[in-house]
Amino acid sequence: MSVTQVAAYAASAPKAPLERTTVPRRPVGEHDVLIDIKYAGICHSDIHQARDGWGEGIYPMVPGHEIAGVVIEAGPGVTRFAVGDRVGVGCFVDSCRRCEQCLAGQEQYCAEGATGTYNALDRNGEPTYGGYSTHVVVDENYTVRIPDGLGLDVAAPLLCAGITLYSPLRHWQAGPGKKVAIVGLGGLGHMGVKIAHALGAEVTVLSQTLRKQEDGLKLGASHYYATGDPATFKELAGAFDLIVSTVSAPIGLDAYLRLLKVDGALVNVGAPEEPVELNLFSVISGRRTLAGSSIGGIAETQEMLDFCAEHGLGAEIELIAADAVNEAYERVLASDVRYRFVIDASTI
Amino acid sequence: MSVTQVAAYAASAPKAPLERTTVPRRPVGEHDVLIDIKYAGICHSDIHQARDGWGEGIYPMVPGHEIAGVVIEAGPGVTRFAVGDRVGVGCFVDSCRRCEQCLAGQEQYCAEGATGTYNALDRNGEPTYGGYSTHVVVDENYTVRIPDGLGLDVAAPLLCAGITLYSPLRHWQAGPGKKVAIVGLGGLGHMGVKIAHALGAEVTVLSQTLRKQEDGLKLGASHYYATGDPATFKELAGAFDLIVSTVSAPIGLDAYLRLLKVDGALVNVGAPEEPVELNLFSVISGRRTLAGSSIGGIAETQEMLDFCAEHGLGAEIELIAADAVNEAYERVLASDVRYRFVIDASTI
Repeated sequence: MSVTQVAAYAASAPKAPLERTTVPRRPVGEHDVLIDIKYAGICHSDIHQARDGWGEGIYPMVPGHEIAGVVIEAGPGVTRFAVGDRVGVGCFVDSCRRCEQCLAGQEQYCAEGATGTYNALDRNGEPTYGGYSTHVVVDENYTVRIPDGLGLDVAAPLLCAGITLYSPLRHWQAGPGKKVAIVGLGGLGHMGVKIAHALGAEVTVLSQTLRKQEDGLKLGASHYYATGDPATFKELAGAFDLIVSTVSAPIGLDAYLRLLKVDGALVNVGAPEEPVELNLFSVISGRRTLAGSSIGGIAETQEMLDFCAEHGLGAEIELIAADAVNEAYERVLASDVRYRFVIDASTI
Repeated sequence: MSVTQVAAYAASAPKAPLERTTVPRRPVGEHDVLIDIKYAGICHSDIHQARDGWGEGIYPMVPGHEIAGVVIEAGPGVTRFAVGDRVGVGCFVDSCRRCEQCLAGQEQYCAEGATGTYNALDRNGEPTYGGYSTHVVVDENYTVRIPDGLGLDVAAPLLCAGITLYSPLRHWQAGPGKKVAIVGLGGLGHMGVKIAHALGAEVTVLSQTLRKQEDGLKLGASHYYATGDPATFKELAGAFDLIVSTVSAPIGLDAYLRLLKVDGALVNVGAPEEPVELNLFSVISGRRTLAGSSIGGIAETQEMLDFCAEHGLGAEIELIAADAVNEAYERVLASDVRYRFVIDASTI
């Protein structure tokens, strides 16, 4: 049980391209599983972090927090998984396990901060390395089961994109009789449309242009509007119970808040790094809510995977070989992917 | 049943001081009550509007939407009130009565807009005149009963300041086990402290200085912090379930959002007219909510009055003669009132 070196794609420094290298994985501990990674999704935030967009990056950095694979070894204390199980790992691999949020199954809001799947230091002070790799060792309590009905390739993006949308859609009660708008039809947004539709809500996509309209309607939207057209904001005034914004560019918050019914909520799961402006009368009028949401807890992630399997919802993906990751990053930045790149880990 | 001229204090133009004059009141209609006004509170928004701070003011303007009086005549179709009843009128005197909000008793969010008690045109296109007057004619459906236990003078400010705080405190479930902060200890804030305390919440006042600390604790707060002291924002990080901001000056939203627990809400009932800035990560982190709230519906206003009577909660007032109104305005702008000026309508 010693540290093992495994193959991975890593950025060696903030401006460096990702290159094949090896990184250490800890010995399989009492409650750990060793996962043979099959697929790893590429999230927009991987690019931010690899390029040190948020600062304080830990290098070398192996991105990847949308991990799907198979258990090939289980520690002696593991009770929830066995060798051969199909499993997933999302955005975090540990948390304090004691705070009010951890005890409530909302580890993503852990008072001490959950331990990121990569670009973080674990509770022993060792750096964590993400899913662009062949193997990973994770505590079983931070591992979820991927139901048989879901392909591991299309399941991988659910571990971040899926739960990031599922959690607010459930929390703000998207369902039958509710009108829900999804802002932005990218990796996050396309899962929002699928999940909101499967929850029974009437879904509208609000996208800059009508370029992806056909896709949006196929994915489950009933309506599709271009936000580049000012008429959209007149026509849809007061239309929605819930708007989930997935975009990281600044949006005109006041304009979107006016699209909400009384007591409606605009929930941001994407956000620009810079401050944004709003007029507080936009929330006072109609008792509207501006809120945010961040991924989901472990139990809720499992619930999301079960829901997606039941409804046949996987991500729309473009499978790539690991050596195409840098090119894929450029295409993500150019919004040129429908809708998620997934790395085939057998090519690492 | 012809139009009657009644005495009132009015601004004849945006920059003009208020002066005694007369204004017309409509004949008492089928469902109207004629109210002998006893007291009228002075709300900060009266000053904004009288001085045309929001634009499009209708002059002459008789401010006043915190009205307490006695019914002296009732139309033939009136069923809820009789001559001699103690009644109140708040911020609006009519609404469309047909929209989803009106039907739900949330007339303040009427789809067509509720008819303001003053500085508005009623559904016949006639200007409305407010409570700085001797009499007013109001539809019984927009009139509330002031319980016997409440003095009419201390009840008047409840019609705006009271309901403006009661409604969000109830909507966001202030009560036993909840930690609630009230930002600003003025006309609105002092009622927030009283009501939140009576609802069973643990109340903290966040005020610029500790100048009014003794008052705050007497009114029902358990804690009192100066927001001018940066240590306050460190010490109270993550402390509150609910923060209600009553101030109309811009506050640092990000700093206040950090004072909320996970799933906490910062609700604005006061607001600056200019846009404010925030970083959306302040709401994404901890799934926090930035919201607003505007007064309350008629049924909820009645509920609030009954609650205040039951708990012995009136406003803290400084009673003035009508000819002191301009001086009072200056003192309100200088935050020099503890905590609400009320005009003795017998002096008009």
